Amino acid sequence: MSFPSFHLPCLSQTVFTSCELGVFDVLLKAERPLSAEEISQAVGASLDGTQRLLAACAGLQLLTVHHDNGQVSYSNTEEASVFLTRSSPLSLCQSIQYSSRTIYLCWHYLTDAVREGKNQYEKAFGVSSKDLFQALYRSDEEMVKFMHLMNSIWNICGKDVITAFDLSPFKVICDLGGCSGALAKQCTSVYPECTVTIFDLPKVVRMSQEHFVSAADLRIGFREGDFFKDSLPAADLYILARILHDWTDERCIELLQRIYEACKPGGAVLLVEALLNEDGSGPLTVQLYSLNMLVQTEGRERTDAQYAALLTTAGFTNIQHRLTGKIYDAVLGYKET
Amino acid sequence: MSFPSFHLPCLSQTVFTSCELGVFDVLLKAERPLSAEEISQAVGASLDGTQRLLAACAGLQLLTVHHDNGQVSYSNTEEASVFLTRSSPLSLCQSIQYSSRTIYLCWHYLTDAVREGKNQYEKAFGVSSKDLFQALYRSDEEMVKFMHLMNSIWNICGKDVITAFDLSPFKVICDLGGCSGALAKQCTSVYPECTVTIFDLPKVVRMSQEHFVSAADLRIGFREGDFFKDSLPAADLYILARILHDWTDERCIELLQRIYEACKPGGAVLLVEALLNEDGSGPLTVQLYSLNMLVQTEGRERTDAQYAALLTTAGFTNIQHRLTGKIYDAVLGYKET
Repeated sequence: MSFPSFHLPCLSQTVFTSCELGVFDVLLKAERPLSAEEISQAVGASLDGTQRLLAACAGLQLLTVHHDNGQVSYSNTEEASVFLTRSSPLSLCQSIQYSSRTIYLCWHYLTDAVREGKNQYEKAFGVSSKDLFQALYRSDEEMVKFMHLMNSIWNICGKDVITAFDLSPFKVICDLGGCSGALAKQCTSVYPECTVTIFDLPKVVRMSQEHFVSAADLRIGFREGDFFKDSLPAADLYILARILHDWTDERCIELLQRIYEACKPGGAVLLVEALLNEDGSGPLTVQLYSLNMLVQTEGRERTDAQYAALLTTAGFTNIQHRLTGKIYDAVLGYKET
Repeated sequence: MSFPSFHLPCLSQTVFTSCELGVFDVLLKAERPLSAEEISQAVGASLDGTQRLLAACAGLQLLTVHHDNGQVSYSNTEEASVFLTRSSPLSLCQSIQYSSRTIYLCWHYLTDAVREGKNQYEKAFGVSSKDLFQALYRSDEEMVKFMHLMNSIWNICGKDVITAFDLSPFKVICDLGGCSGALAKQCTSVYPECTVTIFDLPKVVRMSQEHFVSAADLRIGFREGDFFKDSLPAADLYILARILHDWTDERCIELLQRIYEACKPGGAVLLVEALLNEDGSGPLTVQLYSLNMLVQTEGRERTDAQYAALLTTAGFTNIQHRLTGKIYDAVLGYKET
């Protein structure tokens, strides 16, 4: 163990702060290396603080340091330009902001979460978590941040999970909790014959229509509702991407049974989740996600066998899973014809 | 960059929570692998939360997982037993607790610290940081946590910095801000002819005498005072271990000049600090420490040339530095005979 381990929270906050101040955006726009003075003025931060931040970013290999006649200047590494600038299609800035604010504060109460076996929204934000998504979406600002987080995840990981199985037989797709529509767009791009209905809470649908999905996209539609209460649209394929991991086994089965009822015979449900290894050996990222689900939700990450058991209980058969080699994997279950 | 980077704060909090709950202590005491049920009962935490925490600790290679007839049990890795149990002489538990509480909260305000170029005690803890150590020591509990942090650092790193130079010529040593006395003990153990006076604030001296240094240790004495205000004891060697990094250049010079006045001719001052590379290339840990100094203090980490400049301004000569290859290095400056 490198001593002392306390520098670990510092690593992530350094990346967060650099993104939040727009250090990488300024350097991208400049198209030449900039001095600490120039950067501090452009981002509106103290010179001293900026110098230290730039030094740490250089140590993290997010910035390249140039020495020229005793003058020191900085430029983005490729990685920083691709993932840490706001304008990049693969930008992680929004998800980093969500992490540095919401997730960081929740994790301050990890010990309490482990002791009590429940999420810490009340301590962290003073809001009850009885209705989970009322807590998650406690303000429009929080909701949009969360939607951006989902959006950036599926911009980066969406294609892998959508192509893990050949979904071309399914023409009518319903993405339950489809949020910003990033995964729906991946579907219509990969499978030219399908249409996708995004099913989500009314205020999410409104925000998605306003900010994320163009009305000109005729292959993507919307339906407002609560998937635990309201009737689900008929479809050949239902997608649940990072939905079941928010909920207890009981709630998952309840939701899967509702889907089974609505599903056309021969149709299917696709679960997109980060799968734990059966033997508990990892992956570390998913083990940490499962703690994050404890701190933030009612759910957990699961093994493929655990998802298969939930699907079986709800009536689905011919259950298969595919590992993508990335973070998110796919599990498919059919409703018999 | 592994996506998403938000799992970074989670890594450190996972270690913190496991220590805080005493997971590694319970496993050390048991002297056999324990199941998640047994561990959750012993630490008084929910079974579900404990299971997830243990899985993440296994992923972090702090625990070994044993599979026996479908029963899963856990034991400490060597590293966990050495660094993460409370009873170990090399325990990091106290410093981890300080990190997970005090440092973690301060770093929540890193962006503000970089913007404003100053520490964030007021936002994080509602205390003014005008008098830095009044803020750091805002309660006896905080002070003892901080003292334990220093204690564990010098238990682990003290010998390297004390032997970086041959200090045997110096018989009368004064450790300014000597805190828990861990470095003083390293001195008297390595150099059999020296005596060490620990100079610190009255309440620190009291706590140190009560909890850390035995009155039977006749080679270690105490002197109460504020090294910026009160007269300093005469000595051959003054030690400033992680003191200058708390303060601005101006305050450092002020302190060094006071030491120069008090120092016997031919005597010296030993600075123990984590040194930054001259070219700004690292080490990453020290770059992050320098941000931590921004968030928590008035100071910064410095290069050896910067320390040499401070020492020269105060009158010291024949300045040398030694890198230990560990985190903390040593800089020595002499007062001419």
